[in-house]
Amino acid sequence: MNNPFTNPPIKPDTQDGHYDHAELGLANRNSGTLLETLALDITPSGAHYLLTHFDTPILDPNIHRLQFEGAFANPFEMNMNQIRSLPQITIPVTLECAGNGRAGLSPRRYSMPWGVEAVGTSEWIGTPLAPLIAQASPKSDVVEISFTGADYGYDDGVGHYFGRSLTLDQLGTLDVILAYGMNGQPLLPQHGAPLRIVVPGWYGMASVKWLDRIGALTQPYDGYQQIRTYRFKESAEDEGRPVTHIRVKSLMVPPGVPDWLSRVRCVEAGDVHIQGRAWSGLGRTITKVEFAANGTWQEAKLKERKGKFAWTGWEHTWSAEPGKYVLQCRATDETGAIQPINPPWDLSGFGNNAVQSVRVFVKA
Amino acid sequence: MNNPFTNPPIKPDTQDGHYDHAELGLANRNSGTLLETLALDITPSGAHYLLTHFDTPILDPNIHRLQFEGAFANPFEMNMNQIRSLPQITIPVTLECAGNGRAGLSPRRYSMPWGVEAVGTSEWIGTPLAPLIAQASPKSDVVEISFTGADYGYDDGVGHYFGRSLTLDQLGTLDVILAYGMNGQPLLPQHGAPLRIVVPGWYGMASVKWLDRIGALTQPYDGYQQIRTYRFKESAEDEGRPVTHIRVKSLMVPPGVPDWLSRVRCVEAGDVHIQGRAWSGLGRTITKVEFAANGTWQEAKLKERKGKFAWTGWEHTWSAEPGKYVLQCRATDETGAIQPINPPWDLSGFGNNAVQSVRVFVKA
Repeated sequence: MNNPFTNPPIKPDTQDGHYDHAELGLANRNSGTLLETLALDITPSGAHYLLTHFDTPILDPNIHRLQFEGAFANPFEMNMNQIRSLPQITIPVTLECAGNGRAGLSPRRYSMPWGVEAVGTSEWIGTPLAPLIAQASPKSDVVEISFTGADYGYDDGVGHYFGRSLTLDQLGTLDVILAYGMNGQPLLPQHGAPLRIVVPGWYGMASVKWLDRIGALTQPYDGYQQIRTYRFKESAEDEGRPVTHIRVKSLMVPPGVPDWLSRVRCVEAGDVHIQGRAWSGLGRTITKVEFAANGTWQEAKLKERKGKFAWTGWEHTWSAEPGKYVLQCRATDETGAIQPINPPWDLSGFGNNAVQSVRVFVKA
Repeated sequence: MNNPFTNPPIKPDTQDGHYDHAELGLANRNSGTLLETLALDITPSGAHYLLTHFDTPILDPNIHRLQFEGAFANPFEMNMNQIRSLPQITIPVTLECAGNGRAGLSPRRYSMPWGVEAVGTSEWIGTPLAPLIAQASPKSDVVEISFTGADYGYDDGVGHYFGRSLTLDQLGTLDVILAYGMNGQPLLPQHGAPLRIVVPGWYGMASVKWLDRIGALTQPYDGYQQIRTYRFKESAEDEGRPVTHIRVKSLMVPPGVPDWLSRVRCVEAGDVHIQGRAWSGLGRTITKVEFAANGTWQEAKLKERKGKFAWTGWEHTWSAEPGKYVLQCRATDETGAIQPINPPWDLSGFGNNAVQSVRVFVKA
């Protein structure tokens, strides 16, 4: 008898414009945000995008422990009461799935076929991670710190707990949060309760949920989610480069009202208030957002952001005349990086920051 | 120029096993529950299924009003403070989308392609609707009461606010809740904030969100969502019968751990704890749940339910031997209604209460 998990049903590329039962199952299971909630600084709980590799563990916060293990000079464990008694911070952070936009690529990887909606901003409540790492005291030969969740499953035949790592250098520059709450409430089960990390500025795979182990490693971490996936690759033979910080991107709230099925929009002619959000990883400042109707770009007005790791609001008044339009927006960040019109090629569809297109019909 | 909303991109049936961009867009936008949360009496906020026909209106609770209008002898309006000051009730209610299971039909309607996950149970907080209807006092020739939300859009070329109706007779037997909270919190925007109704025992389309108008009608309601859809039809020519109460159904928490892509499960051989939920509309009692591995049915043990409108937990110990299995469960309610093995035919894929099948690989 074959073990189906060593012969996984992987199709590297699937037919453009057709999605099969497995892809549909993932799309039904994983949740995009509702684009209309981009009008809000903070995505409502439950409307934040959600990508769950395996199952959501239902963990008891009263018995949950965080273990520091491996090459620490002072390894220890903490329970949730001890973690909650540490200095508390609340930080709005925009998170985006590395696979957001995958459905825009052709051919595309057989995986979760995201449209544009895998992004959201929550106010994460927790404590800074760095002092705890310092307290555990990595030994002198430590090169990376690993983060492992309680969620176990198979990918491409490999059984593993979801885990990721960061180098000590990365940890020195990233403001990683050990989070136990969001939006004024305890973490929801599906967002990692009772404990997770949030890595501001990086794609969501780094923000390990259901965290129960932090390890000090003297060799680079070789977990599946670090080595076998979440790497930018030109081809299957390419060793690839790690997916890290979030590329510059923007989205708009689709204006007007929708057609239920196609989501094409209907707008009344006249001045139309267009609004949206723009973001770029590592807390980079958005310097420009442009809006286009049928390819004519105009500069939009930027609004303030709720902290350096949160998206930046933008708005524009569009003088809409009757007709059919494709609306687009594109952002530029302080490094000069600008969104491409077409999806950048990646074998797995990671990091697609191409401009969003919204189809609109303007009524007289 | 054609108005695309009068020529909507409707394909009545699509190819089995292939989903296009519009269907995928709906699947990304609308959220199924996470089957693992069926282990909990109450679905975590944000993990409850969500089907939004148009856009989620972002409404200000401080200015929101509920209007009683039409053929009432004593029409009035109320603000949210007035509504919250009425006698408060908290009731766990299991809601299911009428289109749940649509993807299991072949051919299927071009619409939201639900798998099995469009179901959830929340503790709804609000006040009974009936006393308010009585206070507004329908005139003697009133036959139906309509409920209209603030969400507007197009379906099949028809622009409308989402609305539904109930007859006075139905209102007399249903315990309709005017709800402003769920799971101990104010309603989330995407679940109808600040005000909605919850119609226990009926499929979810009856539980109008973002409620702002209640009308007394002297003729049957002719709104799109009552007349043009949510009707059981054999064929396109069939006038159809209204979709009303939820058919008997059950689901299990898929045991073991998943393969990320296919969601096939891997289980260790030995005694496996299987658990799930069963429900039937109108508060009907579940009298039996059966569990099958590869078609051999065994009776499962029923647990208590949290109120007559909540699902009933069930569990079973499965002695799993190495091999490949399809696991199934089926419920019977007090009327003797039992889930069919194959999906009942309906043109739009409504009311599919066929048994769930979970593919499992048991390791030695």
